[in-house]
Amino acid sequence: MTEKLWGGRFKKKSDPGMERFSSSLPFDRRLYRADIAAGIAHARVLAEGGYLSARESRRIVKALQEIRAEIESGKIQFSPRYEDIHSLILIQLVKKVGPTGKKLHAGRSRNDLVVLDTRLYLKEEVKILLDLMRGLQQALVRRGIEFQEVVMPGYTHLQHAQPVLLAHHFLAHVEMLERDQGRLRDALKRIDVLPAGSGALAGTGLKLNRGLLAELLGFKSVSKNSLDAVSDRDFVAEILADLAILGMHLSRFCEELVLWSSKEFGFAKLDESYCTGSSFLPQKRNPDPAELIRAKTGRLYGNLIAVLTVLKGLPLSYNRDLQEDKEPLFDSIDTVKESLIILAGLTKKLMVDRRAVKRALKGDFSSAVDLAEYLVGKGVAFQEAHEIVGKLVRSCLEKNQSLAALSPSELKKFSARFRTDALQLIEPEHSVSSKFTSGSTAPARVKRELNRWKKYLKI
Amino acid sequence: MTEKLWGGRFKKKSDPGMERFSSSLPFDRRLYRADIAAGIAHARVLAEGGYLSARESRRIVKALQEIRAEIESGKIQFSPRYEDIHSLILIQLVKKVGPTGKKLHAGRSRNDLVVLDTRLYLKEEVKILLDLMRGLQQALVRRGIEFQEVVMPGYTHLQHAQPVLLAHHFLAHVEMLERDQGRLRDALKRIDVLPAGSGALAGTGLKLNRGLLAELLGFKSVSKNSLDAVSDRDFVAEILADLAILGMHLSRFCEELVLWSSKEFGFAKLDESYCTGSSFLPQKRNPDPAELIRAKTGRLYGNLIAVLTVLKGLPLSYNRDLQEDKEPLFDSIDTVKESLIILAGLTKKLMVDRRAVKRALKGDFSSAVDLAEYLVGKGVAFQEAHEIVGKLVRSCLEKNQSLAALSPSELKKFSARFRTDALQLIEPEHSVSSKFTSGSTAPARVKRELNRWKKYLKI
Amino acid sequence: MTEKLWGGRFKKKSDPGMERFSSSLPFDRRLYRADIAAGIAHARVLAEGGYLSARESRRIVKALQEIRAEIESGKIQFSPRYEDIHSLILIQLVKKVGPTGKKLHAGRSRNDLVVLDTRLYLKEEVKILLDLMRGLQQALVRRGIEFQEVVMPGYTHLQHAQPVLLAHHFLAHVEMLERDQGRLRDALKRIDVLPAGSGALAGTGLKLNRGLLAELLGFKSVSKNSLDAVSDRDFVAEILADLAILGMHLSRFCEELVLWSSKEFGFAKLDESYCTGSSFLPQKRNPDPAELIRAKTGRLYGNLIAVLTVLKGLPLSYNRDLQEDKEPLFDSIDTVKESLIILAGLTKKLMVDRRAVKRALKGDFSSAVDLAEYLVGKGVAFQEAHEIVGKLVRSCLEKNQSLAALSPSELKKFSARFRTDALQLIEPEHSVSSKFTSGSTAPARVKRELNRWKKYLKI
Amino acid sequence: MTEKLWGGRFKKKSDPGMERFSSSLPFDRRLYRADIAAGIAHARVLAEGGYLSARESRRIVKALQEIRAEIESGKIQFSPRYEDIHSLILIQLVKKVGPTGKKLHAGRSRNDLVVLDTRLYLKEEVKILLDLMRGLQQALVRRGIEFQEVVMPGYTHLQHAQPVLLAHHFLAHVEMLERDQGRLRDALKRIDVLPAGSGALAGTGLKLNRGLLAELLGFKSVSKNSLDAVSDRDFVAEILADLAILGMHLSRFCEELVLWSSKEFGFAKLDESYCTGSSFLPQKRNPDPAELIRAKTGRLYGNLIAVLTVLKGLPLSYNRDLQEDKEPLFDSIDTVKESLIILAGLTKKLMVDRRAVKRALKGDFSSAVDLAEYLVGKGVAFQEAHEIVGKLVRSCLEKNQSLAALSPSELKKFSARFRTDALQLIEPEHSVSSKFTSGSTAPARVKRELNRWKKYLKI
Repeated sequence: MTEKLWGGRFKKKSDPGMERFSSSLPFDRRLYRADIAAGIAHARVLAEGGYLSARESRRIVKALQEIRAEIESGKIQFSPRYEDIHSLILIQLVKKVGPTGKKLHAGRSRNDLVVLDTRLYLKEEVKILLDLMRGLQQALVRRGIEFQEVVMPGYTHLQHAQPVLLAHHFLAHVEMLERDQGRLRDALKRIDVLPAGSGALAGTGLKLNRGLLAELLGFKSVSKNSLDAVSDRDFVAEILADLAILGMHLSRFCEELVLWSSKEFGFAKLDESYCTGSSFLPQKRNPDPAELIRAKTGRLYGNLIAVLTVLKGLPLSYNRDLQEDKEPLFDSIDTVKESLIILAGLTKKLMVDRRAVKRALKGDFSSAVDLAEYLVGKGVAFQEAHEIVGKLVRSCLEKNQSLAALSPSELKKFSARFRTDALQLIEPEHSVSSKFTSGSTAPARVKRELNRWKKYLKI
Repeated sequence: MTEKLWGGRFKKKSDPGMERFSSSLPFDRRLYRADIAAGIAHARVLAEGGYLSARESRRIVKALQEIRAEIESGKIQFSPRYEDIHSLILIQLVKKVGPTGKKLHAGRSRNDLVVLDTRLYLKEEVKILLDLMRGLQQALVRRGIEFQEVVMPGYTHLQHAQPVLLAHHFLAHVEMLERDQGRLRDALKRIDVLPAGSGALAGTGLKLNRGLLAELLGFKSVSKNSLDAVSDRDFVAEILADLAILGMHLSRFCEELVLWSSKEFGFAKLDESYCTGSSFLPQKRNPDPAELIRAKTGRLYGNLIAVLTVLKGLPLSYNRDLQEDKEPLFDSIDTVKESLIILAGLTKKLMVDRRAVKRALKGDFSSAVDLAEYLVGKGVAFQEAHEIVGKLVRSCLEKNQSLAALSPSELKKFSARFRTDALQLIEPEHSVSSKFTSGSTAPARVKRELNRWKKYLKI
Repeated sequence: MTEKLWGGRFKKKSDPGMERFSSSLPFDRRLYRADIAAGIAHARVLAEGGYLSARESRRIVKALQEIRAEIESGKIQFSPRYEDIHSLILIQLVKKVGPTGKKLHAGRSRNDLVVLDTRLYLKEEVKILLDLMRGLQQALVRRGIEFQEVVMPGYTHLQHAQPVLLAHHFLAHVEMLERDQGRLRDALKRIDVLPAGSGALAGTGLKLNRGLLAELLGFKSVSKNSLDAVSDRDFVAEILADLAILGMHLSRFCEELVLWSSKEFGFAKLDESYCTGSSFLPQKRNPDPAELIRAKTGRLYGNLIAVLTVLKGLPLSYNRDLQEDKEPLFDSIDTVKESLIILAGLTKKLMVDRRAVKRALKGDFSSAVDLAEYLVGKGVAFQEAHEIVGKLVRSCLEKNQSLAALSPSELKKFSARFRTDALQLIEPEHSVSSKFTSGSTAPARVKRELNRWKKYLKI
Repeated sequence: MTEKLWGGRFKKKSDPGMERFSSSLPFDRRLYRADIAAGIAHARVLAEGGYLSARESRRIVKALQEIRAEIESGKIQFSPRYEDIHSLILIQLVKKVGPTGKKLHAGRSRNDLVVLDTRLYLKEEVKILLDLMRGLQQALVRRGIEFQEVVMPGYTHLQHAQPVLLAHHFLAHVEMLERDQGRLRDALKRIDVLPAGSGALAGTGLKLNRGLLAELLGFKSVSKNSLDAVSDRDFVAEILADLAILGMHLSRFCEELVLWSSKEFGFAKLDESYCTGSSFLPQKRNPDPAELIRAKTGRLYGNLIAVLTVLKGLPLSYNRDLQEDKEPLFDSIDTVKESLIILAGLTKKLMVDRRAVKRALKGDFSSAVDLAEYLVGKGVAFQEAHEIVGKLVRSCLEKNQSLAALSPSELKKFSARFRTDALQLIEPEHSVSSKFTSGSTAPARVKRELNRWKKYLKI
């Protein structure tokens, strides 16, 4: 039988199967620090309101700090005797300080307490997530600087499209991670709201200073509607959506790592310390972490759908359904943290094969549009220029010839506007250099971007 | 550092963070019985193929049985030193029997082994799930028999529509569960296929008798394409879809339990042993398990999406992504098992308030269509009859009068075809009795259905 | 055969089935205004860059404006001859102005153009969505003001928990909608970025002034990486997540409308103009739009998952997969717009039955915690007070007695601290008035909130 | 204002916005044939029950047939004046035959009618889907036969794992499609159930012969519980899950087509008639349909989640929410049908580059395990053999040497058991031939499988 915070009204004992089924301690135990911080602040507010003497308040605070230490030293165990982390801590408190401990839960309910704890927890975690994203950005920018001059095939439809700088490619992923951080920072505004003082759903009649509570716990604002405060899980769904999008970004980079690691691409290899072998095939050296991170998008999407499904169609205010928000939330946070750490480690050690990357551009037609734009510079309408170069490509293909092998006279057959200087555009290095627009892969532009990020990320 | 089944080709040690990140032991450990059963059968097949002597085979089988016992007694721990359950068991085997143990993994790969284990595991679990579904059906049928004569409001759009029997309502849920079992049984056909012998992806050159292996392990058929066999996770997605639909059914019943438990409906209460109270509101008696089961639909949907997302766009054959199939699978199975047990327990003890149910029908217009069908019996076209009775209802509403309070002469004002006998149809009991069609709520029909189920479910 | 913007390199004609399969015109046609606006601005930038004469630029601008008018008058049809809206407009342009028209597509690709169009479109739509959300908030606040003094049961677990003001309940939904707007406004920052100038993936060699383009089209910032710019669909996923959360909010309110419309609750009815009847049951008056809006959460979640699935694991940069972003996006926007309009209309006309609401509180125990907090005020530890009142409730239940029927002496049996004044707390009106905390349901607090919203929403 | 099948009880007109919002005609119109077939059968059953004279029945049947013809000729338009397809047809019927037409809707409700129509529709569509899947299987088997002798790299983790036959690879996809058909056929059992006769939720009092109705409409069984029959949408969710899994399969094949079409792989190209070009890059030839089909997995997953979300937590019996089942259902069916047609067409014309496929195997180590199994044949324990060959591979890599370049004496340095015959195993052709197990890639096995499929698919 569990020890409970209720029961005066009950005659029967709980069904033991039901107790196991409904206990949240196996997962909400990770909120213990938040719950204790919340308790300490609440004791101070109760004292200010005259519901605890200064002495009582000090005793409670001290006892809560001891409980935290004892949980961390393993002296207090997360025993299945408790319904949740709140019960465990309150019951331990009473064990330590006696009847005075029974005063702490005045003016609050587990309905507002569990949201308070979750918000406190999330504020910490979001900061860690932001740091880890910067960590991956730093790794990408560093490798970008290292490979600054490397030209690679840029792909659309996984077909060679135009030559681009590898550094430009890395910076594309840096941009994605920057948006991810923007989303998380925006979400933080909606997390950073104190729900305590909302009671079970209607507020409390005790004279509690919510402003003081917010100050003590470091919240920027205070919730404005008690019914909403205890039933709002938007912030959980929002974070899960943000992490789903982030995970999607990581899956895109990992897909590329898997492609680049293939014998066919051969652009890069994960360092051996990040690969695993096969129990059957002696020669294997697999890019497992890239595959795993790509796959973990699945659980990030699943966790999002799980919480959205839970919330659909729930009437106000608190319903026990809301307990199902925490496991998906914790799982997504853990997943993303681990993925970011592994991916940063792996990026730092990524073995790029410069020669293979360069070789890949050989004989492709990825500078075709440069010829078309050359003609535009000579006054040809773009669509005509496109048509001309399209025919040129077709002719090369029919003759099994590369663009690079074209002679000036062959070129002129397709348009009289072509001069000899057009041919140099065909070199991948010239192609990237010819780009003008901001945001393009022109080496000077990319260098400026690398510097901007270097400064911004304090590398 | 973990102990591994590979490494001859590697020079570097694995990154410890990567090892933790990629280990599947924390969750695939539950496959230990399947993995040992697979090992025992494989030893026999290797012996038959001449790759193990009878003695070696016996030693291996015995050692595997000991390993199973030692895992169960806690002597062998699921230490983070192993990459997965397969490694743990093979390495323990070598510890026990020396070099002979290194012969067991011949002709198989973890790629085919993990699917074999998962299929063996699922075959057991599906049987348990089927039993638990029958258990809930039995509880529903029993309560149906008990409340056989209770008439309740039948709802469409949560509006009173027509009177129905409570037993009919319970049987609707029994039907849903029967379809769920049908789906699982169909899925079982696709689970019950032996993948072993497919090696890493191409089969093996060893002379292994897959038919014998299937026989020893109790599989009905043998996979026909090795590339497909190691990369097929359809059966996981299919089971997850089946459990998602089942969970949806449970959520519908639980929604009703929550509604019925409200003060406004008041039709039923969960037994106190299935309710919990509030740490704040002393009077509360909440139908928590019904809310939790309703909410757990979320994780069932999430798990389905997680696995579908993992599988999207994966080229053949095995990719490490596939490791991400197991946690969602296990979580959905555990969730459904627990939910079915709790829901059966709760149904058995459900406290139905017969009087409240009956009272609910008072003054509603739920037998209006019976009047319309009465007119059809007298030759009125149905749509006209519908119009006539619609106007009758409107007139009653305007006068704030119930159908039951109508006099024969008032009735005749709306249609001359109404005779006095029409009025008795208005009684809920008459309304249900007047139904004719098979599958309808007519008491005789419902009784026959209850009997059919009683026999079928061996109650 | 479709008319195309490419083909010089091709020898074969397209498969007609493939053309139908891959055409996006059936849905991207709604981007025609954006595409024309983009074309007009691009013509100006090309002129500034010296690629069009002033005259050519003027002719193109004029022709594009004519095309817009002709599309709107139906003169130009969305014929299946075109691959997409961009092709249709460019081909029409050439029809109108001849070869000069072929100059417009210089320096841009459909890869950057389609993102530009989508962003332009979304900037408009987000504004409309924000307005519609305010419209629903206004309706809710107005009804809150109208029912300012109405006390209703506040629910947790769909059980009576504490009395609350109906206005407080409405304001809870206003708060949710305010967060929804916050999320959309944050998303807008990430939408309001000009991608044009990124070309197919690498930028362009033409001297195009992206700053001027941004200015002409009203974008706040300019994308910084061309690879990222053409493959980024974060903003679509983000909007879809925001609308999924919003839809979830609407589903919660609609669930309440369905509950309140039931005979059992009877708190409110939708106006007849928002109800439908039944083809079979003459008496029915169903709250259909509330059910439909509740159900439409399904497509909002589905659309989100659809786009997230599309994006998973895509390598850089543009892939044709990205075309699948638009239908889900458009469907979610349309769904939310219609739902908000209907829900605002329905809220304005919602028929609240004040008496039924009040009656619902009769004989419940929803002021139990007020008695407990009374004792806390007298120095009793809260958990003890909770236990005392719990027993009091249990005793009442056993005697089938309401709290309101308690005599002072009966009260004192449970705690000597109870004075006569405790009994008045039991009245729902006193219960709400006794609340102190900000955000609580205390009438003075709620009034202040109503006024704040009135001012903020300019009612 | 719409024309409606109800209204006698209503005083107010419907809100026009609400009418548009709630009309299902824009999508359920595709059920017109099913609805008319249902009407014709119902007329016969009504006649048998004595509710229609033979003459009335004939007139109704004839009129319904005319309505079908007029819909198909465009004479009857799907005007927004109707709530749904059922209303349209009934109102047209009354227009044609006068008051007699008002008799047809006796004993049925739109609640059971819409499920009947959907089931009739699905029975047709599932058959078409099964045929289209066979069509794709046939294309794959034909190409398999054509490329029977082509050896390609088999991949795990997108790394060369072992040589396999291209035909074996194609057959893996044939197996997947066969399971997909199995799932659909199983689902068909649960679709093929007559719901009619269930009325709105409780059955009907009219003497209707459901057995006859089932016979006339070709249903195998009859639903057993009217409450369940009108609210069951399992079959929709099940089909959507089956199509999601099928779509996942197609996405895997399409991912391979995209990979194979890349310059880096170069194994195959889509025929030009299935490729598109770029408006910007003149040289592009993109495998668009493969990308689109891969992406359409997104909508298939989304549609599944949409319907599951709709159904979550709905109390019995019919709720208007259920109307939201149809658009996702229709969209998934259309999507899969088109994708299968395109993919079959594309497979038939797929241009495989035999030489590139063969070249890809050069210098890889994909026959390493064959050497290990060779040693097992000589009595070496498999794990030792694996270790030996692992070291051999490592040594080759260090010397930048291929396996094929090994001399017998070098081989012996790693194990004395190696004889000269071991070296021939290194040839890809020998590697595949050395496979023994059923289901393996051994040419004889694959040939037998091709023949089995040829016969089974009637090629």
